Amino acid sequence: MRADLPPFLAACLGRPVAHTPVWFMRQAGRSLPEYRAKRGPGSILEAIRRPELAAELTLQPVRRYGVDAAVLFSDIVVPLVDFGVDVAPGTGPVVERPFRSRADLDRLRQVPTPFVEETVAILAAELDVPLIGFSGGPFTLASYLVEGGPSRDYATTKALMWSDPGLWSELMGRLADITLASLRAQVLAGASAVQIFESWGGALAPEDYRTSVLPTLTTVLAGMADLGAPRIVFGVNTGELLAGFAEAGADVVGVDWRVPLDVARRRVGPGKALQGNLDPTACLAPWPVLADKARAVLAAAPGGGHIFNLGHGVLPSTDPAQLERLVELVHSETSR
Amino acid sequence: MRADLPPFLAACLGRPVAHTPVWFMRQAGRSLPEYRAKRGPGSILEAIRRPELAAELTLQPVRRYGVDAAVLFSDIVVPLVDFGVDVAPGTGPVVERPFRSRADLDRLRQVPTPFVEETVAILAAELDVPLIGFSGGPFTLASYLVEGGPSRDYATTKALMWSDPGLWSELMGRLADITLASLRAQVLAGASAVQIFESWGGALAPEDYRTSVLPTLTTVLAGMADLGAPRIVFGVNTGELLAGFAEAGADVVGVDWRVPLDVARRRVGPGKALQGNLDPTACLAPWPVLADKARAVLAAAPGGGHIFNLGHGVLPSTDPAQLERLVELVHSETSR
Repeated sequence: MRADLPPFLAACLGRPVAHTPVWFMRQAGRSLPEYRAKRGPGSILEAIRRPELAAELTLQPVRRYGVDAAVLFSDIVVPLVDFGVDVAPGTGPVVERPFRSRADLDRLRQVPTPFVEETVAILAAELDVPLIGFSGGPFTLASYLVEGGPSRDYATTKALMWSDPGLWSELMGRLADITLASLRAQVLAGASAVQIFESWGGALAPEDYRTSVLPTLTTVLAGMADLGAPRIVFGVNTGELLAGFAEAGADVVGVDWRVPLDVARRRVGPGKALQGNLDPTACLAPWPVLADKARAVLAAAPGGGHIFNLGHGVLPSTDPAQLERLVELVHSETSR
Repeated sequence: MRADLPPFLAACLGRPVAHTPVWFMRQAGRSLPEYRAKRGPGSILEAIRRPELAAELTLQPVRRYGVDAAVLFSDIVVPLVDFGVDVAPGTGPVVERPFRSRADLDRLRQVPTPFVEETVAILAAELDVPLIGFSGGPFTLASYLVEGGPSRDYATTKALMWSDPGLWSELMGRLADITLASLRAQVLAGASAVQIFESWGGALAPEDYRTSVLPTLTTVLAGMADLGAPRIVFGVNTGELLAGFAEAGADVVGVDWRVPLDVARRRVGPGKALQGNLDPTACLAPWPVLADKARAVLAAAPGGGHIFNLGHGVLPSTDPAQLERLVELVHSETSR
């Protein structure tokens, strides 16, 4: 490790930082006018397949906001496109023939995604802040494959998990392989850290997550250990899963806005960094309200080991000027 | 109080019970064939306005399942229909002209709902288990009025709350009056307990709920105290709000399936009953899995003060035979 480790990586490892680092989930995206100008009329998956474009979309928020990390412009379903996953605008991932039985395992193959590695390589050469690669978490990916479209309660996924534990276990194993291949490729191409978006894991009761999913998450995190890139795990509604994420091997536990960071710290224990956790809708509030809330987040995570972020992705209706001021506030109020 | 207090009411008050009482949120509804047969083609609000029909729909699950409480067939938007709230099938509450400014306060009037009291009176005479009346919680009702339709993030509601605290406070006050009038009328007509569905309160960070909503919830609960009917408060994703619900004056704190009941007990403290908290999707699992999960819920709430329920409403796809067996299991395994 270099002495001048960038603040984002230093905070991931719980080391001293010159200021609390900050980035935003979905910082690249529809909230930015320059994104809307460049993105073009094609689907998001088409944009992801164009390395020059994907790199540019990744760079836009770094330039505008001065955030401490870039996050790859991609999508968690990219390693699953061979299964027939598509992303419908405004709807999210849809699957033509959802995962229903053992026969569907054969359709779940690891596919090369050279365009992702190419985007990462372009960025690694251009960026002067760390690049975060990412993947979906095992439950989240399984839920897309099984539900086949938007779901409120993930009933079909859970019913499969409970009614056929053997098939569930094979599905988990297959997803672990695919996820690990994708994450390793991103780091080997130049990403400095990875985030696992276990976005919908919080739909499970903690005991179910622990029994049916956590071993797979542990496998994925362990399979990344030799690369030395910090591993972040995040999902919404995961207040009761935070300790599990830490035990599974996350270096950084992402926290949604429902759990104050001091409470999260007690659940996670020492020796792990925390990431979060401002309510994304607070960015729609008048600046003095937003500033107060940002200060409250900083105050709840004293003593380092904190990466400032929202508690979920940037809302498309967010005014970028609010995020600019937010970065400035976090940097200026935490400068040491 | 009679010596032979029904188990549901005894458990609400933390008194000894012959067995752990059980009822299900949305026990009356589309999962029951007899409901689909009787309900007719009209809207849900039309059905609610027909006391004989609403009473029959309330009674159906009591007859079939032998649950320990009936819950009024109604909807939390009933006291708000004068504002132009309707319930769209498959979508939920929709509002033609959402709440946006001070002028909208004038449209938010307390309206008499004699049909509700008539339904309650019919049921009070027919039932041999307690009847639960209910209302929406202050944030939940406000979110319907302000969003005007389904929402993922309640951004418009929160933005109003943060940008115009004065107007928000007046809205809260008006909703407290309307809610209290509705709940009191239900109890005076014969309901034995009430549940406040603060369904979407968990969308707020705990500090925001505490500052902007909890005082109103406290007012409503205090305004019910003289009637002696146990007061239940429930919402999903409320793991960090449970202590607040207890402090606000709830006699019973409802818990969704994300928080194990032993954890909920630590957060709520002694002297309050807990209600819940089986994952509703577990009812779609094979019976042995469902039975194990029900036993785990019972084991996490030893020592009384527990009302067995799901952690959210019955899913329409639930097989009623599963709920029948569940009631039987809870009763037989907790008989003292």
